[in-house]
Amino acid sequence: MFLTRTEYDRGVNTFSPEGRLFQVEYAIEAIKLGSTAIALKTKEGVVLAVEKRVTSPLLEPSSVEKIMEIDEHIGCAMSGLIADARTLVEHARVETQNHRFSYGEPMSVESTTQAICDLALRFGEGDEESMSRPFGVSLLIAGHDENGPSLYHTDPSGTFWQCNAKAIGSGSEGADSSLQEQYNKEMTLQEAETVALSILKQVMEEKVTPNNVDIAKVAPTYHLYSPAEVEAVISRL
Amino acid sequence: MFLTRTEYDRGVNTFSPEGRLFQVEYAIEAIKLGSTAIALKTKEGVVLAVEKRVTSPLLEPSSVEKIMEIDEHIGCAMSGLIADARTLVEHARVETQNHRFSYGEPMSVESTTQAICDLALRFGEGDEESMSRPFGVSLLIAGHDENGPSLYHTDPSGTFWQCNAKAIGSGSEGADSSLQEQYNKEMTLQEAETVALSILKQVMEEKVTPNNVDIAKVAPTYHLYSPAEVEAVISRL
Amino acid sequence: MFLTRTEYDRGVNTFSPEGRLFQVEYAIEAIKLGSTAIALKTKEGVVLAVEKRVTSPLLEPSSVEKIMEIDEHIGCAMSGLIADARTLVEHARVETQNHRFSYGEPMSVESTTQAICDLALRFGEGDEESMSRPFGVSLLIAGHDENGPSLYHTDPSGTFWQCNAKAIGSGSEGADSSLQEQYNKEMTLQEAETVALSILKQVMEEKVTPNNVDIAKVAPTYHLYSPAEVEAVISRL
Amino acid sequence: MFLTRTEYDRGVNTFSPEGRLFQVEYAIEAIKLGSTAIALKTKEGVVLAVEKRVTSPLLEPSSVEKIMEIDEHIGCAMSGLIADARTLVEHARVETQNHRFSYGEPMSVESTTQAICDLALRFGEGDEESMSRPFGVSLLIAGHDENGPSLYHTDPSGTFWQCNAKAIGSGSEGADSSLQEQYNKEMTLQEAETVALSILKQVMEEKVTPNNVDIAKVAPTYHLYSPAEVEAVISRL
Amino acid sequence: MFLTRTEYDRGVNTFSPEGRLFQVEYAIEAIKLGSTAIALKTKEGVVLAVEKRVTSPLLEPSSVEKIMEIDEHIGCAMSGLIADARTLVEHARVETQNHRFSYGEPMSVESTTQAICDLALRFGEGDEESMSRPFGVSLLIAGHDENGPSLYHTDPSGTFWQCNAKAIGSGSEGADSSLQEQYNKEMTLQEAETVALSILKQVMEEKVTPNNVDIAKVAPTYHLYSPAEVEAVISRL
Amino acid sequence: MFLTRTEYDRGVNTFSPEGRLFQVEYAIEAIKLGSTAIALKTKEGVVLAVEKRVTSPLLEPSSVEKIMEIDEHIGCAMSGLIADARTLVEHARVETQNHRFSYGEPMSVESTTQAICDLALRFGEGDEESMSRPFGVSLLIAGHDENGPSLYHTDPSGTFWQCNAKAIGSGSEGADSSLQEQYNKEMTLQEAETVALSILKQVMEEKVTPNNVDIAKVAPTYHLYSPAEVEAVISRL
Amino acid sequence: MFLTRTEYDRGVNTFSPEGRLFQVEYAIEAIKLGSTAIALKTKEGVVLAVEKRVTSPLLEPSSVEKIMEIDEHIGCAMSGLIADARTLVEHARVETQNHRFSYGEPMSVESTTQAICDLALRFGEGDEESMSRPFGVSLLIAGHDENGPSLYHTDPSGTFWQCNAKAIGSGSEGADSSLQEQYNKEMTLQEAETVALSILKQVMEEKVTPNNVDIAKVAPTYHLYSPAEVEAVISRL
Repeated sequence: MFLTRTEYDRGVNTFSPEGRLFQVEYAIEAIKLGSTAIALKTKEGVVLAVEKRVTSPLLEPSSVEKIMEIDEHIGCAMSGLIADARTLVEHARVETQNHRFSYGEPMSVESTTQAICDLALRFGEGDEESMSRPFGVSLLIAGHDENGPSLYHTDPSGTFWQCNAKAIGSGSEGADSSLQEQYNKEMTLQEAETVALSILKQVMEEKVTPNNVDIAKVAPTYHLYSPAEVEAVISRL
Repeated sequence: MFLTRTEYDRGVNTFSPEGRLFQVEYAIEAIKLGSTAIALKTKEGVVLAVEKRVTSPLLEPSSVEKIMEIDEHIGCAMSGLIADARTLVEHARVETQNHRFSYGEPMSVESTTQAICDLALRFGEGDEESMSRPFGVSLLIAGHDENGPSLYHTDPSGTFWQCNAKAIGSGSEGADSSLQEQYNKEMTLQEAETVALSILKQVMEEKVTPNNVDIAKVAPTYHLYSPAEVEAVISRL
Repeated sequence: MFLTRTEYDRGVNTFSPEGRLFQVEYAIEAIKLGSTAIALKTKEGVVLAVEKRVTSPLLEPSSVEKIMEIDEHIGCAMSGLIADARTLVEHARVETQNHRFSYGEPMSVESTTQAICDLALRFGEGDEESMSRPFGVSLLIAGHDENGPSLYHTDPSGTFWQCNAKAIGSGSEGADSSLQEQYNKEMTLQEAETVALSILKQVMEEKVTPNNVDIAKVAPTYHLYSPAEVEAVISRL
Repeated sequence: MFLTRTEYDRGVNTFSPEGRLFQVEYAIEAIKLGSTAIALKTKEGVVLAVEKRVTSPLLEPSSVEKIMEIDEHIGCAMSGLIADARTLVEHARVETQNHRFSYGEPMSVESTTQAICDLALRFGEGDEESMSRPFGVSLLIAGHDENGPSLYHTDPSGTFWQCNAKAIGSGSEGADSSLQEQYNKEMTLQEAETVALSILKQVMEEKVTPNNVDIAKVAPTYHLYSPAEVEAVISRL
Repeated sequence: MFLTRTEYDRGVNTFSPEGRLFQVEYAIEAIKLGSTAIALKTKEGVVLAVEKRVTSPLLEPSSVEKIMEIDEHIGCAMSGLIADARTLVEHARVETQNHRFSYGEPMSVESTTQAICDLALRFGEGDEESMSRPFGVSLLIAGHDENGPSLYHTDPSGTFWQCNAKAIGSGSEGADSSLQEQYNKEMTLQEAETVALSILKQVMEEKVTPNNVDIAKVAPTYHLYSPAEVEAVISRL
Repeated sequence: MFLTRTEYDRGVNTFSPEGRLFQVEYAIEAIKLGSTAIALKTKEGVVLAVEKRVTSPLLEPSSVEKIMEIDEHIGCAMSGLIADARTLVEHARVETQNHRFSYGEPMSVESTTQAICDLALRFGEGDEESMSRPFGVSLLIAGHDENGPSLYHTDPSGTFWQCNAKAIGSGSEGADSSLQEQYNKEMTLQEAETVALSILKQVMEEKVTPNNVDIAKVAPTYHLYSPAEVEAVISRL
Repeated sequence: MFLTRTEYDRGVNTFSPEGRLFQVEYAIEAIKLGSTAIALKTKEGVVLAVEKRVTSPLLEPSSVEKIMEIDEHIGCAMSGLIADARTLVEHARVETQNHRFSYGEPMSVESTTQAICDLALRFGEGDEESMSRPFGVSLLIAGHDENGPSLYHTDPSGTFWQCNAKAIGSGSEGADSSLQEQYNKEMTLQEAETVALSILKQVMEEKVTPNNVDIAKVAPTYHLYSPAEVEAVISRL
């Protein structure tokens, strides 16, 4: 019956008869509208690369932040609602700082990812920190801890997966196929930079410049590339 | 009348005229969409085996965790929404740790199961720990305490049953039939491993490898099999 | 008008124009779907007997608990949603333990029953202990205190009645008729055991075995029959 | 328009365009389904008499409590939802005990009645003590204080009236007419007992016995008649 | 469009497109169903007179209280829902007592009226003292303070007016016309008594007796007339 | 589509697709039903004049307060729901008194206006002081502080404007046109009185008398004109 | 189907099936109804210019505040609901003052912008500071800190961007095009003033005067231009 779906999908947190949570599925749709982000893990560290949609020449490109530092050993790329992502990142920053203060050592990348997903899962529960709707954002979390480099992918349902390479956002389908062809675990960090940017170039509708892409690495600490460093990668394509 | 069902099933926690709780029934549907998990109890201990859906070759298979440790004498396999399962497992970990701290001894397997079901039952009540909807997950809880090995099965309604063997998830119907034919209380732990994996093989659509199944035992402590140990069981099929 | 009923019965706690509370009536329906339980009071004590639906040969029959101890002088049989019953029983256990601690004597059977009904009545009020819907369970509470043996019957509305004998669950209608024919106040406890089991046998669709029935007595303390003791009663039929 | 009523009557506490509160009116309907209760005030004290619906011969007649003691100088008869009545009575018992403790003297009958009505009026307000719906019960409150004997009638709206004689419940219409014919202020307590029971007999569908009626008096303290005392009144009819 | 009104009037506290608050207007309707009350201010003091609907000869006329004392210098007559009026009066009694305790002097009549209206205005706000719907009652508040005698009229919207004479309730329309003809500021208190009762007599459907009317004055303290005093006024008609 | 509006305008605080807040717009409608109020600012001070609707000759004209003092240097005229205005004025009185107590000097007129608008904006948020709907009232706030005389106009949206002259209420459209023609910044306070009253006279349907208008000034302190002072202004027309 | 949109857009914070948040999009519509505001960043500082809609000659132009100071080094121009903007500005003022008090130095412009967006994002969550709907306002935040001059643009979704130049409000589309043509990073502050006002002149429907525009700069401290200073800029056009 044609009303079936509309009957169930407005409740923020209600199962449909088939066992689905529509609001979470719709939040995942919000990410498919977002800009593309790509991550690759190598033995030397993790590379993050994102498309920046600079909608006006009067916009400061550096202020369109799609890659953010969480702690000195963890960074993340995002796709979806940026304001939601900032809330998750801010939460993760507080958690990692508290961990350092309490235990005198950096928080592991998995624990940090779990802390972000706990907050994402708790939407609709009315307590102080949680949102009244799902967070409309996906993150690629790159980090380096005592287990070496690691890369996590989170989605609005509060689920996370550990990956070797992953793309999110509007161009993720094509980018994921390209990653499966081009990725291997033995690539160098420099090779990973080149692969990330060449795939991003395919899914973007305009010419790649230091103004419309950002690149960062965690190897073993977070570093956001300067325009000159981005230019250097572009020149290798 | 065709509207009957849709009139009652959106209230998170409302009885239908026949005395049914539809949201709980729909959450049970979510589990039927999940991957298959199987457990067998022997005199030596309990075996847990799960199918892992590794949707991309770039995903780290070990990060698709469908079997988790609760305490050193308790582990569980899950099917359904993984983020929900993590919340229940984290709750159980806190409860078992508190018990050890307060009483200087491990929490019994039944009390741990009851603690998980208490949380599952309390959905929709608006207090701090509970969810605003049923937990969309089923657990197979394997443990070993002063009463020897034990196996519990929980569902989204907060009900639990003690079993000798049990399958949950999308392939549970066929797997349960096979278990009734092949299980006997006198099998060794090694025989149980073989039965679990051979049944899992039947319900999976792809070849069984250490990448797409996980095996664990509680005998008497929790142990997740290494890829080599899984390979050894596969080779016995 | 055909909409009359559906207009009123979804409010958790709303009167219909005829002065009825439909959600409570629907919860009572949930009990009619449950397994049958029977209780008889004699001068020596109270007997409880229940049907256990062991849906799979792999299920541990002893874990299908339909009779539970509340305190050493009080036990109860249940029909309906087992998870709801466990919440009520757990509440009663805390109340009776608190009473022993505060007053140095056991809580009376009527006060214990009242405490259970208070919790059942308070659904939908949003405070910490109460449920957001009626409890979908009926209890037969058997006890022994300074007034001798006593038997109470509770329902989802929070009402209770004192009885000499009573059946609840899917077979309660036929069982209640049989009880009225066969019960008399002067029977011995052993006669009550036989009557309870012979009536249960009539309403069950399968052969009675120690695996699919449980028997308990409070005479004057709670005792759950071992399989051998159940077998002994069966053999007397 | 045929929808007018159904549009307004589901809000727990909402005025209709004519200035009516339908949920309260529906709760009053619940009382018309209840058993009949009768009260008469004499100079010697107040008599309460109620019909008990003992639906099964296995039910303990004494446990069908339709008359309850509030304090040693106050008792009440009820008609409607018994569990609701118990909540009001329990509230009144706490209030009267607190009053004795704080002021060293019994609470007046009017203050006790006011305390019950305050709770009844506060439904739907979400605080700890109040219900989420109107209390579906009417009370006849009999008492004796420094102003002598007094009789109050309360209804679900939280309103109360002082009466010389009053009937409530399913047979109240006929019983009230009979009371107006037969009552006079100068009757003795014994005459009042006889009138109460003879009127109750007319509205009951079965023979009056000590099993299906209860009688109590407050003269000047509360006393529930034993079966023998009830039998004595019956024999005078 | 015929739905316009029903679309807006169920929200407890919502403006309609024309800027109207329907629930408040409906509460005002509730008062038009109530019994008639009349007040007149003279230089000697204020007279209050009310119709009492004694629906049964078995009802104690003195318990149908439609005139109540607030403090020794303030009284009020009411029309509408009596239980709501009692809540407002009880609130005013606490406020006036607190004022006496804190400042050692009586609260002014206007401040008392304002305190009542503050509570009336706050409905639907969910805090402890306020109601979840408008108070369905109108009051005529008569008082005497350092400014001499005064008379206030309040309605369910929380608005109040100072009057020389005023009628409320089902007969208020006719009574107000009569008051405009017969009232003058120079009348004596005795003349006011006579006018009040003669107007009440016109709007009542039955003969006026000390049983079905109440009269009180604040001159300068509150005094409720005894049946003999009422009889005396009746005899002057 | 004809349903568009009714779909959005019942949510207390919800944007329509065009970016409008209908409940606030409807509250503004409530003011258009109110009596007319006019204010003019001169170098000597501010004049406030209001129409009073004295619906009955028995009403005390002085109790129909449409002009109120906030602090000795601030007064206001109002149009709309009087009970709402009283709440805002009472809030402002507390704020100005607190300011005097804390800082030893009067609160500025703009800060006082801002405090009123903060409360007006906060409706629908469920905290203790705010209303559950917009305040259905507009204020003309006249004051005098270290910046000299000032006049503010507030509306239900919580917005305020500083004006030289302004009319609100049912006659505001015509009155505003007249003000634009007749007002100049150099008028004397006496001229302003005359203009205010002559414009009020045009929009009122009855003859202007000291009974149906009120005049006040803040020059530099608040003063409400006596009937004789009003008569004097009338005589100048 | 034509109802699709109306089904999803009334929930304050609910995703539509396409992953959109309609209430936020509607709040953005509210800004398109607002007056135009323009900002340009130069090396010397930032210029803000706004259209003021002075709807009546009796309105005090200086009280139509569309540019406000946050701290001495930060100011902002606004378009949309002014009362909402005031709440955000007041929040920012408290945050910047607290920062100065706690750290003894001014808060950075980005942190101040983030604090405003955090509040904007939190709508619908029911805590004390947040609104029950999105804030219907856009801000252009101009500041000067240790990184030199900076300009931020915020919208109702809680997102912010750093810009070199930006226009908001009803004329923003045309104004943005003009800015892209005329802006360059090397302009002087004086050139920026001229460009801002000449563009504003194009989108306004009336002649530009010191009464209907406001200009401010942060260079390096906030300064709102006097009418004479505005006149000087106008004369340069």
